[in-house]
Order: sequence, then structure tokens, then C-alpha cells
Amino acid sequence: MTSDVAKQPVAAHEGLFRVGLLGHGTVGGAFHELLDARAPAIEAATGMRPEISGVLRRSEGDFDEILGASDLIVELIGGTEPARDYILRALAAGKHVVTANKQVLSQFGEEIYAAARAAGVQLRFEAAVGGVVPVIRVIHETLAAAHIEKVHGIVNGTTNFILSEMARTGETYSDALRQAQELGYAEADPSEDVNGKDAAAKMAIIARLAFNAGVALDDVPYEGIENITVDDIAYAKELGLSLKLVGTAERVNDGLSVRVYPAFLYGAHPLASVNGSFNAVTIESPAITEITLSGPGAGGSQTASAVLGDVISAMIPPAALPAPTEEIRLVTDVESAFYLHLEVADRPGVLAQVAELLGLQGVSVKSVVQQGLGDNARLVMVVHPVLESKFMAAVDLIGRLDFLRSRPRVIRVIEEQFEEIP
Amino acid sequence: MTSDVAKQPVAAHEGLFRVGLLGHGTVGGAFHELLDARAPAIEAATGMRPEISGVLRRSEGDFDEILGASDLIVELIGGTEPARDYILRALAAGKHVVTANKQVLSQFGEEIYAAARAAGVQLRFEAAVGGVVPVIRVIHETLAAAHIEKVHGIVNGTTNFILSEMARTGETYSDALRQAQELGYAEADPSEDVNGKDAAAKMAIIARLAFNAGVALDDVPYEGIENITVDDIAYAKELGLSLKLVGTAERVNDGLSVRVYPAFLYGAHPLASVNGSFNAVTIESPAITEITLSGPGAGGSQTASAVLGDVISAMIPPAALPAPTEEIRLVTDVESAFYLHLEVADRPGVLAQVAELLGLQGVSVKSVVQQGLGDNARLVMVVHPVLESKFMAAVDLIGRLDFLRSRPRVIRVIEEQFEEIP
Repeated sequence: MTSDVAKQPVAAHEGLFRVGLLGHGTVGGAFHELLDARAPAIEAATGMRPEISGVLRRSEGDFDEILGASDLIVELIGGTEPARDYILRALAAGKHVVTANKQVLSQFGEEIYAAARAAGVQLRFEAAVGGVVPVIRVIHETLAAAHIEKVHGIVNGTTNFILSEMARTGETYSDALRQAQELGYAEADPSEDVNGKDAAAKMAIIARLAFNAGVALDDVPYEGIENITVDDIAYAKELGLSLKLVGTAERVNDGLSVRVYPAFLYGAHPLASVNGSFNAVTIESPAITEITLSGPGAGGSQTASAVLGDVISAMIPPAALPAPTEEIRLVTDVESAFYLHLEVADRPGVLAQVAELLGLQGVSVKSVVQQGLGDNARLVMVVHPVLESKFMAAVDLIGRLDFLRSRPRVIRVIEEQFEEIP
Repeated sequence: MTSDVAKQPVAAHEGLFRVGLLGHGTVGGAFHELLDARAPAIEAATGMRPEISGVLRRSEGDFDEILGASDLIVELIGGTEPARDYILRALAAGKHVVTANKQVLSQFGEEIYAAARAAGVQLRFEAAVGGVVPVIRVIHETLAAAHIEKVHGIVNGTTNFILSEMARTGETYSDALRQAQELGYAEADPSEDVNGKDAAAKMAIIARLAFNAGVALDDVPYEGIENITVDDIAYAKELGLSLKLVGTAERVNDGLSVRVYPAFLYGAHPLASVNGSFNAVTIESPAITEITLSGPGAGGSQTASAVLGDVISAMIPPAALPAPTEEIRLVTDVESAFYLHLEVADRPGVLAQVAELLGLQGVSVKSVVQQGLGDNARLVMVVHPVLESKFMAAVDLIGRLDFLRSRPRVIRVIEEQFEEIP
């Protein structure tokens, strides 16, 4: 392809939207798979079918050729060069760019943002910050009108995992780090995670957006967690505090402070309960009070999902809701766990009869609390998930038992397993 | 204005973006003020100055005239008619529409969405669901590529406030409701909040987006919290559960279930810790695991902020990052509270000397824990917010005291007051 061809304006070719992919590691591979899997749904929603038009691997592929054959470039190489060069050349050629590259944006952001403005194309980078947490979109779009005062973020999953483990088990920093490495939450060389530099790069990008002020990595002082002792965490617990590696970007008088540092949080702070490898960001503004966003830190499929969301946004301004594409049957009888509260006469055989009626409908009891109250008793139980129709049939029969003192009381229980730390 | 003029395509007039405002109650008034206040910042970012081109009040203003003079219509009347008629006429005239109206969208959504598609204009409605929590944008844009499995939401602030109060104080439903009314968290007639209908309307809108399937209010069975007793909540606490009014939209086999019901949540569920009048939504998808979004439920200024975010998105596809508009001084010496950990010889006068050095720099102690360890002692304290330079100067002097057994250890403490319930 010649560079003249590469400089043609972005246009869909026969209903195709051609995506050039730079980098094919963990995230690149997951993105490629996800795009292929979701292409039919994306075509139904946008009218264009996205397709990988070329892949640049370390030892394979030609950038110019891929550029010429693409409407949009996804940059997943990481690092500053050649990523910066590729991004600038793609923008100059009038191609949209989606990147997950915090290094290049935190160091060469202004050059890249200016190139995108000059070319009039889209540059999107949700996946560069906060894993799957949509902090870029929310700050840049939802809060476009808000005067943001402060952003606090837990934006590095590795350090949050280590600190959560230290608090939970009382183990040392080095033991918790070793465990993080074994579980794949920390790299073999974890320096940029544990010393705060990774978080500083992400906070620079967030601050640039939140305050529309030129902030780069060099402007962000950072400290890490390498010197935190179990002692600190234990004492802090006594004071009601939990320790996090926090990034802060805030207005201070007529200035701006952006920094990364280990900090204790009081229990009521929305970030205090963010544990394990999760990321979370709290955004404060007078008009909205505060918004908190949380979710898993970067993993291959999470990052790929954020990248694909950006690609779709670049394909079509997502303003009009498409016609419904899914003909879905509405289900009313669903499975649920239940809480059952019975006021009964306190006499032998009551629990056995209740249990029998439940068992006949296939309802299995998880936990029971029984409490005597003179002649009466309370029987409170939680049952395992079961179809609502079956459970209610059992309750209907239980309600007719002669020892019942009032109508059975039923409340559903949401029983999903959420990851405890880790 | 004639209807021919009203049907001209949307276009900015001499750098102006003309916003017609229908409704001027609490939210409408707050929106009008916020737009005026933020107009210069919006102009800097978008190149167009937004301006209220007309206001339709109950007893004042002509809809056709406002329509003809506007590029975008903001509908804040609420209810189904005449809101539905105005929205459809605005779309047919080629105007963008932003609305906060859950009633009209949950009942006449397909008609309205189809009209927006046919007109090729933007229809945005973040403020119709979840207060300031950007659930619409995140589902529709960030997760456009994701196969969403399930959405759980606390989407009614009134009921969440009442349930939080019952759990916190042990008071009855009717006492908690009365308190909610006194504090302005519940209307004089709270029926649609407490019986679950308000939440059902919001869940219908969310489900329509999350699954791209036609779901309307009539499809959503709902239960409220009127019959919840303090007893239920007390027993549930014993079992480690907290009670919320939950909206669920989920895939079930080859179907879809959308419903609103009071439910207990185990402590590890991300919604379990959402208290007071806050809203929160958890979105689950295999590719991303889960995202949780939380923030204040609807208030006038919060809703106005969500509406203005939508207006800006309609003004310009927010893809290119504008050049920095704010020249902001980067501040490095900021105020913070600190944790100070000292290993000292256990002899008289130690605390006094430390306190004196802190006092000389204007550092005020908030709490102290002192612990003897044979000849040595540990002195752990938290101090009130103070400029970092002052605190570090004091620590520097403390570090030179002869009774110090090791270097002082310092960690910052984030000490913001977050609203406890309520």
C-alpha cells in the first residue's frame, strides 16, 4: 500500500469496519477472540461488521500495510516506542485509534491528543486506566459538565491485592508479594506496580481529563508500598483504618495536586471496602456529591472488553438505541434462595413437619434459627436456591398447618458467591 | 414559527447551541442554573455556547415556538402526556432530545426509540435511571460489546433510606417512612416508591438496554417494602444478611427475567454496603466479571448534572480531547492527616517531647496508642490535617531525639467525612 492510500479519509468499506491490531500478547489475543465472537451482535447494532484487517506481531506484519487496510488502529504493544510513532502515524493518516497504553499517554499525551484533534478522528483509551472500571468515559462524558473537585483511585490491582492479603492474614509484605506472583496478580518484576509508578501514570491520565490541565507522569510524585509493615496495618485496624495505595488528583486553592501514596482510610470511605485485585475510583464534584466506580483490575479479557467498547464507540456515535434485536421470552418463575419466617406453637414435631413439606417440593434448608417464646416459637430459616413456584407451593402447604400462629413470611435471598479476598 | 422552520435540520446557529427546556420545577430550575454557570467551560470544550432558547412552564410558553428556536429539547415535565407527544414532535422535527422521564420511557419506549432512529437524532436519558449513577452510558457504550448476563440494582433512594434506617435504629417501617418524609427523601404520597413501581420502571429501561429486548413496565412484576418488619431485619442480621429493595434483570435459560423485590444480601455482595439514599447498580458479564457503580439517588442538582452531561454528548461526539483550557499550578505541599509510628525508649517525658515538637509546627494530635515493650515502647498516633511540609519538619526533629529506637514511620490518612447513614 502506498501512503496516499493510507491517507484516505476513514470510511466503511462495503459494510465492513476494518480494525488493524498492533500487538498480539495476552490482551491482543483476548481482544481478537472477543471481536470475532461479538461481530454479529456488533453488526446488528451498528450496521457494520468489524473485522481484523491485519495483526502486527513482534516478528511478523508490516505497519504501513496494516494502516492502509484499516479504518481504526488498536494499539496494544505498550511502552513508549514504537507505540508513540505508530499512534501518531495512524492519527495523521486519518484513522481512529484505540489504545490501552498508559506509558505513552502519560508521557506523550499532549502530542497525541493534539494529533487526534488535528486529524478530527477519535482517540479512545478506556483500557489504559482502571481495568474494566469505566473511569475515562464517565469523567469525559457523563461528567463533562461537572466541575470536578477531587478524584481518589485505587488504580493498581497488584498492590491492592498485596495490602488486602497483609490485612487479612497478617503475613508480611514479601510473603504477600510472593503469593501475588504465584496467583498471577504480580509480574516477575513487580517494581513499577509496588513502587507506585504504574498508578502515577494512570493518575496523570485521569487528572488530565478531570481538570483539563496538562499533567504528565513527571508531574506526579509517587510512593509505593515496599516499606509497609504488618505492624502498621495491625495498629491501624485498632484505629478503624484500612490501608490502600491511593492516587489522588484534587484542586488545592488555585492549584492542582496529583500524587500516589499509601494511605489509611476510615471504614466509611467508599474505597475502604475495595479488596483483592479490584480497582475503584471515587469522583467528587459539588453538583453530584460523589460517584464510585469499581470492578476487577486489568486482566486479559477485562482489558479486551474495554478496548472493544472503545472500538464500537468509534464505529458509531452511540446515540440512537437500535431496534430490539433479541426476541426474548420473559421468564417469571425463577430460582432463588429464600428466607422463611414462621410463628409456630412450641411443640414437638413442628420442625419435622415443616422440613417434610419443604422436602416434598425439593426445597433444601441451608440454615435454621429456632427460638422459644413461651407457648410459641419462631422458626427462621434460609433455604438453598429453588424455583419460586416450588418454594411457594411448599409455603402454601406449611401455611395450612394447624400449629401456625400467623402467615408464613417469605423474603428472597441473593446468594451469589462474590469473591472474598483474594 | 412555522413548522417548516421547525423541521430544518439541527445546526448550530452562529456558535450557539440552543436548548429548549420543558418543565421548570426542582430539576428544571437546577438544570437552568447549572447550564448558565457551566456555559463558558462547555464553549471552551465544544466550540459552541449552549443557551436556553425557551422555557415551557405549566402556565407559560408555547411548545411549537420553543421547538422552532431549539437545536435540542430537554424534557423534564415527567409523566406520560403531554411528555410523550412533545418528545415525538421534537424528534420528528429533527431535534435531539434529552429526558429524565422514566414513566414515558418505560411505557412508550419503543415508539420513542423508533422515532429517534427514524429522525437520525440523539435521544439520551441518563437521568431517568439511577440518579447520578451513569448506568445508561456504561451499559450502552462501555459494555456495548459485552454479553451482559445480569444486572442488579438499588434504583430507588427512598426505599433504600427507609431500609437503612430500620436496620440502623431498629425503628418500624412507618417511623422510618415518616423520617424519610421529614428529611425530603420521600414524597408526601410515597406509594410508587415504597410499592416498587418506580424501581420497576427503571429496571424496564435498564433491561431494554442491557439485553436489547423489548421490555416495558407491564412486563416487570414488582413487590414493595410496606410489609417488611423490624423483626425480619433483626433475624437477618444474625444470619449475616442485609435487606435491600433489589431490581434484577437477568438471562434465565433462553429467557429473561426482570423483577423488583425486597431481598437479603450477604455481606460480600457489592450492593450490601450501599446505605442511605444512595443508588447502585452491579452489572455482570463473563468478559468483565462485574462492574459496580454507586452514587447519590436523584436530587435536583444531581439529576440536573446528569441531564447536562447528556446535552453535551449530544452537542458533540466526545471523542477528541480538547486542548488544555486550564492553566493550573501543580501543588506539591498539601494538607493531610498523618499516622506516626515511633519506637521509643520507655521512659518519662517521651510523649511530652514528641507532642511539643509537633505543637511547634502547628500539628494537632487526634488519637494516640502507647504500648510498653520491656525497655522500649511504641507510640502510634494519628494527627489532624496539616501541611505536609510542617508535619515532616516536626518528624525530622522528632527523628533526632535520643530516645528514638528506629526511624519514625509516617503514613498519610484520608480523613474525609463520608455520610454515614442517613
